[in-house]
Amino acid sequence: MRSSQFFLPTLRENPAEAEIVSHRLMLRAGMVRQASAGIYSWLPLGFKVLKNVERIVREEQDRAGCQEVLMPTIQSADLWRESGRYDAYGKEMLRIKDRREREMLYGPTNEEQITQIFRDSIRSYREVPKMLYHIQWKFRDEVRPRFGVMRGREFLMKDAYSFDMDYEGARRAYNKFFVAYLRTFARMGMRAIPMEADTGPIGGNLSHEFIVLADTGESQVYCDREFLDFDVLGKDINYADPAAVEKVVNHFTSLYARTDEKNDQAAFEQQVPEARRYVGRGIEVGHIFYFGTKYSEPLKAQVQDKDGNPVTIHMGSYGIGVSRMPAAIIEASHDDNGIIWPETVAPFRVGLINIKVDDKAGTAMAEDIYAKLNNAGVEVLYDDRDERAGAKFAEMDLIGLPWQLVVGPRGAAKGQVEMKNRKTGEKVELSVDAVLQRLGA
Amino acid sequence: MRSSQFFLPTLRENPAEAEIVSHRLMLRAGMVRQASAGIYSWLPLGFKVLKNVERIVREEQDRAGCQEVLMPTIQSADLWRESGRYDAYGKEMLRIKDRREREMLYGPTNEEQITQIFRDSIRSYREVPKMLYHIQWKFRDEVRPRFGVMRGREFLMKDAYSFDMDYEGARRAYNKFFVAYLRTFARMGMRAIPMEADTGPIGGNLSHEFIVLADTGESQVYCDREFLDFDVLGKDINYADPAAVEKVVNHFTSLYARTDEKNDQAAFEQQVPEARRYVGRGIEVGHIFYFGTKYSEPLKAQVQDKDGNPVTIHMGSYGIGVSRMPAAIIEASHDDNGIIWPETVAPFRVGLINIKVDDKAGTAMAEDIYAKLNNAGVEVLYDDRDERAGAKFAEMDLIGLPWQLVVGPRGAAKGQVEMKNRKTGEKVELSVDAVLQRLGA
Repeated sequence: MRSSQFFLPTLRENPAEAEIVSHRLMLRAGMVRQASAGIYSWLPLGFKVLKNVERIVREEQDRAGCQEVLMPTIQSADLWRESGRYDAYGKEMLRIKDRREREMLYGPTNEEQITQIFRDSIRSYREVPKMLYHIQWKFRDEVRPRFGVMRGREFLMKDAYSFDMDYEGARRAYNKFFVAYLRTFARMGMRAIPMEADTGPIGGNLSHEFIVLADTGESQVYCDREFLDFDVLGKDINYADPAAVEKVVNHFTSLYARTDEKNDQAAFEQQVPEARRYVGRGIEVGHIFYFGTKYSEPLKAQVQDKDGNPVTIHMGSYGIGVSRMPAAIIEASHDDNGIIWPETVAPFRVGLINIKVDDKAGTAMAEDIYAKLNNAGVEVLYDDRDERAGAKFAEMDLIGLPWQLVVGPRGAAKGQVEMKNRKTGEKVELSVDAVLQRLGA
Repeated sequence: MRSSQFFLPTLRENPAEAEIVSHRLMLRAGMVRQASAGIYSWLPLGFKVLKNVERIVREEQDRAGCQEVLMPTIQSADLWRESGRYDAYGKEMLRIKDRREREMLYGPTNEEQITQIFRDSIRSYREVPKMLYHIQWKFRDEVRPRFGVMRGREFLMKDAYSFDMDYEGARRAYNKFFVAYLRTFARMGMRAIPMEADTGPIGGNLSHEFIVLADTGESQVYCDREFLDFDVLGKDINYADPAAVEKVVNHFTSLYARTDEKNDQAAFEQQVPEARRYVGRGIEVGHIFYFGTKYSEPLKAQVQDKDGNPVTIHMGSYGIGVSRMPAAIIEASHDDNGIIWPETVAPFRVGLINIKVDDKAGTAMAEDIYAKLNNAGVEVLYDDRDERAGAKFAEMDLIGLPWQLVVGPRGAAKGQVEMKNRKTGEKVELSVDAVLQRLGA
């Protein structure tokens, strides 16, 4: 993509309304724009990151054996009356009347709806277990939306649901999601710690929040710092082997990690040596629940077991805040000059800067590199505009692409390109061929 | 994917509520389930088709130089007051009050919102032209939702918007979308005819609907049958060449084709020989508009031209009914036994049937084929269930995968597989290697 054509409305000044660094950088980098309080439009740069996050989430759900569906945003109030949540849910639920005065709502979550789908479709133990997920916009009418997409009102969420014959089955499903979540966040370059958590309005008695430690987080957490050294990736997990999955879960629950609501200060101090205690803030990026028959009971989601007896299904639900992830990643990965994207979610892998567009040799070299990277399928943003070099450098740092290539008259004369690693700041002068080779092109 | 694990709740009986064949087949094939009137959940089989449709739409928008963004579903009423449409739009608009009693709405379309984004971000003629699109859920509170996802209330739409300095620029953008639409529908195996159309609540004075001829369509249309022989695909269009693009548009507007509102019976009869006259029904799958400054004027979307003078921007908008497409494709491609998917949008390319799961040789062969197809990246649904062969055949025909492979004890003994083309019904007996080769695996 050429910068001369790309819709990238960056801002020079820090927007006054942004209280935290990710909100500030997402606005400055032209990733999002507020449409109304807590409701955002995603512009091309932000949209690309959002799609990359979504792709990783999807791949790991699929790998764990979860099947994708898509439920609508607008739900019927009657369905929520069956579970009793229509009245119990507070003002966060956006309630709507349609033209026939039927009571509807914009789904804040989907336990009722997926239970209805299961109930109307599945009759026999032979079709169980099942794990279903969708990635869909949700609405929670927060009293005080803030921090940009971190606590918005309209947000994109991956929510999954598991259906099993009994607690043991449900626990196996819970473990699969637990591991899938570790893998998902690790692939995005994030170290998310699973912490024992409260179940809130979803309900149930077993729950973990996946928390990224960050001073700007909204959750107060207590955990053992040792978790920060735990290795996640590289584990080629076999989801068909419950024991292998359970082993990973046991490892990641072997140390103390709890959210505020679940913290037991005496236990914390007894189990964690003082030097390893982390008491501070964290960002919730995922939340998993086992809640048994909380919804299947009132909604009468039953299947027949081997002997023909009705069994009320055991369920869990599993959420990842997809539209919150780009902000969480920025909170964890930035410097004074801007964002530092991990390669897996970067909107482009390479930023190519032509310092002086009226220099023939340099421009020919830049065009050549641009064409070759495109042909090799390497995503590149090519700054071909007639602007000051300083402004171009600042913008590339701000938007945080992992690799910067700088082409100028001096280097072009020698056949050299400068290649900069955005994260380390390391710069090397290389031939065009060497650059292409390093980028796998 | 193994049928024993796949969530595919097919129905044996024809659902009473379904009036048209696509609605009936989508329910019977377990593609969708109604959540409430005109609001549907997409189950795994339907979701896969929807994603394939979305991917083709996206690829063709990108190819035409359109950039993807994502606007929210919930919009502020104030923005629609700026254009005057808040009061003008009837009861189809779903109006909402949030917890602070602010007036909001579920977007039925996005002209105001995209104009606001453009207005707040772009100041200079150097950043024009721009073409932006998004694929997002919309809501229109139809008086009489019907025909399943064909006329739903919550529906997925690709809507694009173009921004140009003058009419000539806007016309070039219009032509690009015109051609992109021809390519998009052709890739889905559809013959969509561009017809002069009314502009309705979007406004403007230049508009084409892309219509698939079908008796179950809701639009009454008048056109020259010659269009059915026009060739679309294979045209390797260069969007950077306005003359080449215009040539395609001229070709596809050279004959008479108009929707009911625009039909001029005298002109129709004069321009089209009687034998070539089509008067009948059609399904609207796309609609493009040029409306000039209808929104940019009241919303004050202006940029500076070369001399520093303010210019009100010229706009167009371009929609494809993404969630309607699977139904439109089925209307155009089915037989008495079920759906016939074109390969480009098929949920799986291959259906593999193991006739007798307790036969060792046959099962070994089926497992071998399944593994090899998966390894080669060929999407396959493998019916490994212990069910009657007849039920398996009927279900495979119903869900319409392009290729069926049948493995049974008799064939396995000879090392032969039956390969059936769902569309033509043609069957051949082949070795496993020959089957894999034909499928490119």
